[in-house]
Amino acid sequence: MTAAPIEIASPTPHKSSEVHAPSSQVVHFDATAPLHLACQQQLAPFSIAYQTYGTLNDSKSNAILICHALTGDQHVASVNPVTGKPGWWETLVGPGKPVDTARFFVICANILGGCMGSTGPASINPATGQPYGVTFPVITIGDMVEAQVRLIDHLGIDQLFAVIGGSMGGMQVLEWAARYKDRVFAAVPIATAAWHSSQNIAFHEVGRQAVMADPDWAGGNYYAVGKTPRNGLAVARMAAHITYLSEDALQRKFGRSLQDSSELTFSFRADFQVESYLRHQGSTFVERFDANSYLYITRAMDYFDLREGHGNVLANAFTGTKTRFCVVSFTSDWLYPTRESRAIVQALNAVAANVSFVEIDSNKGHDAFLLEEPTFFATIRGFLNAAALKRGFAPSADSTQ
Amino acid sequence: MTAAPIEIASPTPHKSSEVHAPSSQVVHFDATAPLHLACQQQLAPFSIAYQTYGTLNDSKSNAILICHALTGDQHVASVNPVTGKPGWWETLVGPGKPVDTARFFVICANILGGCMGSTGPASINPATGQPYGVTFPVITIGDMVEAQVRLIDHLGIDQLFAVIGGSMGGMQVLEWAARYKDRVFAAVPIATAAWHSSQNIAFHEVGRQAVMADPDWAGGNYYAVGKTPRNGLAVARMAAHITYLSEDALQRKFGRSLQDSSELTFSFRADFQVESYLRHQGSTFVERFDANSYLYITRAMDYFDLREGHGNVLANAFTGTKTRFCVVSFTSDWLYPTRESRAIVQALNAVAANVSFVEIDSNKGHDAFLLEEPTFFATIRGFLNAAALKRGFAPSADSTQ
Repeated sequence: MTAAPIEIASPTPHKSSEVHAPSSQVVHFDATAPLHLACQQQLAPFSIAYQTYGTLNDSKSNAILICHALTGDQHVASVNPVTGKPGWWETLVGPGKPVDTARFFVICANILGGCMGSTGPASINPATGQPYGVTFPVITIGDMVEAQVRLIDHLGIDQLFAVIGGSMGGMQVLEWAARYKDRVFAAVPIATAAWHSSQNIAFHEVGRQAVMADPDWAGGNYYAVGKTPRNGLAVARMAAHITYLSEDALQRKFGRSLQDSSELTFSFRADFQVESYLRHQGSTFVERFDANSYLYITRAMDYFDLREGHGNVLANAFTGTKTRFCVVSFTSDWLYPTRESRAIVQALNAVAANVSFVEIDSNKGHDAFLLEEPTFFATIRGFLNAAALKRGFAPSADSTQ
Repeated sequence: MTAAPIEIASPTPHKSSEVHAPSSQVVHFDATAPLHLACQQQLAPFSIAYQTYGTLNDSKSNAILICHALTGDQHVASVNPVTGKPGWWETLVGPGKPVDTARFFVICANILGGCMGSTGPASINPATGQPYGVTFPVITIGDMVEAQVRLIDHLGIDQLFAVIGGSMGGMQVLEWAARYKDRVFAAVPIATAAWHSSQNIAFHEVGRQAVMADPDWAGGNYYAVGKTPRNGLAVARMAAHITYLSEDALQRKFGRSLQDSSELTFSFRADFQVESYLRHQGSTFVERFDANSYLYITRAMDYFDLREGHGNVLANAFTGTKTRFCVVSFTSDWLYPTRESRAIVQALNAVAANVSFVEIDSNKGHDAFLLEEPTFFATIRGFLNAAALKRGFAPSADSTQ
C-alpha cells in the first residue's frame, strides 16, 4: 500500500511580489492618516491596492464598488497577475455585461488584511522592517470598509452608485449600507449573512487550526525562515472548498467516479475524482495565497455580527436608510443559506427600506455567485438598470433585458 | 495578539495497551485460518476483541450483534477502559433497555482495522515484529463483516437474531444482510447509506490529508519514533465533528456565545464556545484513537458501495432475503440524510423484502443515533419485540411499550 499525502507542485511560496509591489494601482496613506481599528489599535501607514474599470463621469455619480470574498482580490474583471486566469467576476463585470463598465466606473480593492497589495500580515511593518506576521492587528469587516472609505475619499467620490459583493463581499456591502447611509445609493449583498453562524465559525476554526498546526507556520513567522505552511493551508482550503459546493453539485460533478483506473487501488492514493479535485484545490491555493492572510480574514468573518452596536437588533443597523437594496441568495447554498438572506430582508422591511429579494434556483451551492447563472445575471442587470433610472442616468441600450 | 494552536493536554499517545492487550475478550485466529480480504491479500494471524452482555440461550437463537461506527469500539454497554466513560450505547443497550440484555445476548466486536484489540495498523505484524503501520492492507466494510463472521462462528451461533448498527455500523448491517441472508433474522441499519457519497468521501479525504500532512505521522511509522500525529488527527476530528451535528444543533448549543470573556479578544484564541468545543473534541480524540486506524477506517467507508458486485443495482444485493429490516434515519442528519435510507428502503421494496422505515424527527444531526431520542428508542424496542414474537420468543415484560 502506498501512502500519498498532497503533492505540491513547486516549492515556490505565494508570489510575494504582489504583496509588496502589486500589479495594480495602489494608494498609500501615511503616518499622518492612521486607520482606527475596531481592536482600538491604529494602523499607519497603510496601503490599499485597487483596480478600476470604465470611466468616472464628471459628476462622479456612476461609481460601483465591488467587494471581494475571502480569497478574492482586486482583479475582478481582468487577468489575475498571479494565476494568469481571467478576473474572478469577468463574466459579470465588463463592457455590456450585467455590471456594465461601458456605463459604470467599477472599483475593486484588495481588502485590508489581504495579500495582493493592500496592507496585511505579509506586509512589512515599518516599525521593524519585517513582515507583520501575527503582530498584525486582528481586523474586522468594519475595518475593511473603513479602509475602502479612505480609497473612495481619495478618488473624490461622494456617493457610490452601488456597492456589490458576494459572501464576505456581501458582509462589506451590509457594513457600507449601515455605516454610510448617504454614500450608498444601491446595495447588492449576495449569498451572505448579517452574522457568522456557529457552523461557519466551526469550519473556519478547523482551517485555522490546520494552518497553525503546520510546523512550517513557525508561529506565524514563516516569512523569516523562507517557508510557508503549505500542507496546513492546503488542508484548510480543502475543508473550506467542500462548503462552497452543494452535495448535489459534488455528486453530479464527481459522484463516486474513479480518477485514473477502472478499479479501486486499495491504497491512500486519490482513487476518487473528488479526492484528486480537492487535492488540486488545496495545492493551487497555496501558490496564490498567504497563510496568515487566511487566518486574519477568516477571523474577521467570524467576528462579523452586524447586530452588535445596534442593541442586538439587526433592523436598527439600517434605521433611516434610503439605499435601494437587492438581496440575492441561492437555493443550494448551505454556507450562507437563504434564511440568512431572509433575516436581512426582514430587518430591512422592519425599517421600511426599499428592498427586493431574489432567491435564485441553483444546484451549484455557495459557489453559484461566482458562476454564470442566467437568472442571477438578469437580476443584477435589471436591478442596476432600474436603480440607474432612479438615479437619473439615461437608459442603457440593454435596459430592457 | 496571541496565536493559540490546539493545546493538547498530555504527551501520552493513544493508550496502546488496548491495542495489544485489550480489556475485553479476544479471539485469535492463527496462520491456518487466514482472512481473505477484498484487496486479494490474506491476513493471518488476526484477532477480534469483543464484549458480550446477557446470556446466550440454549438454542443460541437470541444473539444480537451490534456493529460500531468509525470511532466506536466493543465497549457498547460498559465502562470504556480508555476514557473511563460509560459505553457508547449504554442508554440503548442493557437490562430492560430497548436492546434488552436480560433477554438477548449482545455481542459487540472491535472492527478489523480498529485500535482496541482487533487487528489493525497499530498491531504487531508477526512477520516483522513491528507495528503494521501503512503496510497494513487496505480493508473494506465487507472485510470487517467477514472478520465478524469468524467470531460468530467461533461462538457457535448459526443465525443472529439481529444485527444493529448506526453510521458505519449500519453499513456493516447491510453487508451482513446482503452476504449472509440465512444468518440474519432481523437487521437494523440506522443513519447510514448503501454507498458513500462524493461529499462523504471529500470530508474523509480532508481528514486523511490533515493526518498525513503532520510530520509526526512519519510516513505512518510514528510508533517506531515514539510520536503520534496529534495535531493532524485533532484537525481531522474537528472537521468530522462538524458533520456529526446539524447546523441547528450547533446554533442552539453554542450560537455565537463567547467562551471566557464578555468581549472579543481580537486574537486567535478560542473566543467562541464552538471553537473551544471543537478544540476539545480534537484533543480528547487523540488520547483515545490511533491515527492510522483513522486512515484505514475512513478509507473502508469511502470504498463502501453495496451496488458493486450486484450489477450496480442495490436491490440485487438483497434478492431472496427473508430478513426483517427496520431502516431508521433522522431528519437533521446531513451526513447520511434520509434520502440515503430511502434508497435502501426502495431497494428492499423492489425485492419484496419485509421492511419498515422510520424517519425520526430530531434536530441533533447525525449524532442523534447516539443520543437518547425517545421515538428512536421506542422504534428499536417495538421492532425487536415484534421480531422476537415472529422468531418465537416469549413476549417480554415490556413488549407493549
